[in-house]
Amino acid sequence: MVPGAEVARVVVAFEDDAADLAVLHQHGLIDAQIDPAVFSARCLNGLFEQGPDVWRTIRRALQELLASPQGLPRGGLVARSSLDMLLPVAIGDFVDGYGGLHHATNMGRILRPDSPALLPNWRHLAYHGRAGTVVRSGSGIVRPRGQIVVDGAPSFEPTRRLDMELEVGCVVGVGSELGVPVDIEDVADHVFGLVLVNDWSARDIQAFEYQPLGPFLGKSFATSISSWVVSLDALEPYLVPGLVATQDPPPSPYLRSALPAVPDLHLEVLLQTRAMVSAGTPALVISRVEFAEAMYWSMAQQVAHATANGAGTRPGDLFGSGTASGADARRQAGSFMELTWDGTRPLELPNGERRCFLEDGDTLVMQGWCGSEDNGVPMVSFGDVIGSIVPARQN
Amino acid sequence: MVPGAEVARVVVAFEDDAADLAVLHQHGLIDAQIDPAVFSARCLNGLFEQGPDVWRTIRRALQELLASPQGLPRGGLVARSSLDMLLPVAIGDFVDGYGGLHHATNMGRILRPDSPALLPNWRHLAYHGRAGTVVRSGSGIVRPRGQIVVDGAPSFEPTRRLDMELEVGCVVGVGSELGVPVDIEDVADHVFGLVLVNDWSARDIQAFEYQPLGPFLGKSFATSISSWVVSLDALEPYLVPGLVATQDPPPSPYLRSALPAVPDLHLEVLLQTRAMVSAGTPALVISRVEFAEAMYWSMAQQVAHATANGAGTRPGDLFGSGTASGADARRQAGSFMELTWDGTRPLELPNGERRCFLEDGDTLVMQGWCGSEDNGVPMVSFGDVIGSIVPARQN
Repeated sequence: MVPGAEVARVVVAFEDDAADLAVLHQHGLIDAQIDPAVFSARCLNGLFEQGPDVWRTIRRALQELLASPQGLPRGGLVARSSLDMLLPVAIGDFVDGYGGLHHATNMGRILRPDSPALLPNWRHLAYHGRAGTVVRSGSGIVRPRGQIVVDGAPSFEPTRRLDMELEVGCVVGVGSELGVPVDIEDVADHVFGLVLVNDWSARDIQAFEYQPLGPFLGKSFATSISSWVVSLDALEPYLVPGLVATQDPPPSPYLRSALPAVPDLHLEVLLQTRAMVSAGTPALVISRVEFAEAMYWSMAQQVAHATANGAGTRPGDLFGSGTASGADARRQAGSFMELTWDGTRPLELPNGERRCFLEDGDTLVMQGWCGSEDNGVPMVSFGDVIGSIVPARQN
Repeated sequence: MVPGAEVARVVVAFEDDAADLAVLHQHGLIDAQIDPAVFSARCLNGLFEQGPDVWRTIRRALQELLASPQGLPRGGLVARSSLDMLLPVAIGDFVDGYGGLHHATNMGRILRPDSPALLPNWRHLAYHGRAGTVVRSGSGIVRPRGQIVVDGAPSFEPTRRLDMELEVGCVVGVGSELGVPVDIEDVADHVFGLVLVNDWSARDIQAFEYQPLGPFLGKSFATSISSWVVSLDALEPYLVPGLVATQDPPPSPYLRSALPAVPDLHLEVLLQTRAMVSAGTPALVISRVEFAEAMYWSMAQQVAHATANGAGTRPGDLFGSGTASGADARRQAGSFMELTWDGTRPLELPNGERRCFLEDGDTLVMQGWCGSEDNGVPMVSFGDVIGSIVPARQN
């Protein structure tokens, strides 16, 4: 919400400010053909339906306005810090992948120490998550209850192994028809842009339930996404071949693409415990992950794979990358499972606290950006994904 | 769509006719407080949002009108055969359960012959399906392609084991808050009614992919539902304890309910091959299932279970029962996997054709009803779920 505005607005971030598209449209600075309701809306789905040509027209108009001497009209630019951000997308389906090489290897080693780390089919894995429990950054995360095994017997109680999953999500802007797979070279005609994702996970609930139908209650209690969606157009200068270029064996023909595969995206996870808040200690970086070195499968490959059976897509569908982890599980992992190796090597915090998994009152912040101010490459920042753990409800 | 009407209408079935709620509302015969847009809509979600009191007010008003000497006004009643039916619900999330005792036992025996048929956790299983590929009865089902194992190696090609799954779905009318589980005794305040469901499945794609993240591309290509939703109020006279009453061991406290658990619903699956259509042979009943004797878990238990971790629900969420099969797999099963025991005992059709799984041009019809005309109990019919298999696309 823009301060003083009675309805929600579609805004575009520019440094510390945000351009209010509803105001610019009122001033005739954006294509008058577009229905003004697209810009005075609680989510971006109306904008998605306009299609890539309109998205690019708006982007060009904004770039010209921001570069012009007179700048934007009064009220057209507001401070980002003054905004009350909403869930940016009405989510259709939420598909979560498993495309991180190091993450899948680590999880295989932890959960199946006597077998090869990667199952023969791991290169083709994804599952459906719960779209209705995708929440905006800043939402409190209530510790879920579920069936967990305690002293050898199942017991229904609050999870003891509440974890994060650091992911990048891609948001579908233009849907595709049921029965017609999306060709991998056409994915950019359908995807609007990327968000950061924290797919909260309860490892003990998940462990009890995941055979043979996959994760369910261990995941479906909440998934947080950033309130800002970074458009594919804005990311184009940062696309690199990454780990995807090393795929061996070569993927099936429907998964082969000549395009650079992933954004050169730097990710960080920060933790601030309740004690750190009380002491005025800022959040501490507990993990740094290079997304392009984490993902064995690209987002385009995931969309092509998820529709290879003819599944249609809709505006607002969210595809998660799967957890992004680097080669060093201790410093570069997207989950506490990996950072603490199944809880066997607790994180030692400077104030003397230890963490195997998340505790009530802990706040996690995920951040991401492309480019670097140091060497003159303009930066594109992703919105933060912030979530604090709220104690389980008393039943 | 009602013939001659320019917009879609919400209609209520009454024997061979349907009452047009938009017309009745125009004539002042339904509570004038309700927004007329609720009744001139392409789906029932607007009606859902009115809540159970309004649903019951409308039901009572209709019952009085149909019983009154003057009956309904001109145009208020149209022949059901003249209607062009739509997908009745804008689906939120699609959760599919696994609550059928005989089905789970059969599948365990077929897929894991050397282990106990039921895994220790089977009583707590469900997974998320793809909401965007739920289609209305009558939609053609394109044979999906996927990774299947051929001569020991994965190959991307059309499924050779295309199957049905006979299920009953419950549709959420009033959502529930994120973080707050739905109490089992309150499920009827959230569920609007039931539909029949055919959760089409490609068994070879599913077999390759389902470990460890569960079914994905083997299921997500299409799920058909009936175009009519039978309200819980209409089903109340037919609720029985059923197999649910035999649960042993007793379920966890959050899954215990004093209410009768399941509708005494008779289900049939009919098959008509292309050759039968050419010869003018009507569809043949290939399976009969008593729903109340098939389901070990009730729908209310499934909703309570799926929200036990605090997952919220939204109007239009669909919960599938899981495949409904009776004790005799050869005559009472909800899947070809069971009817033909993994394709080892083909169905022998009277015209000499054989079926292990579905072939192109086959049409399946699922039907269901409560009550019986024979012994004077009024019947409540579910809408049919019809689907014909369309050949795979040429890639």
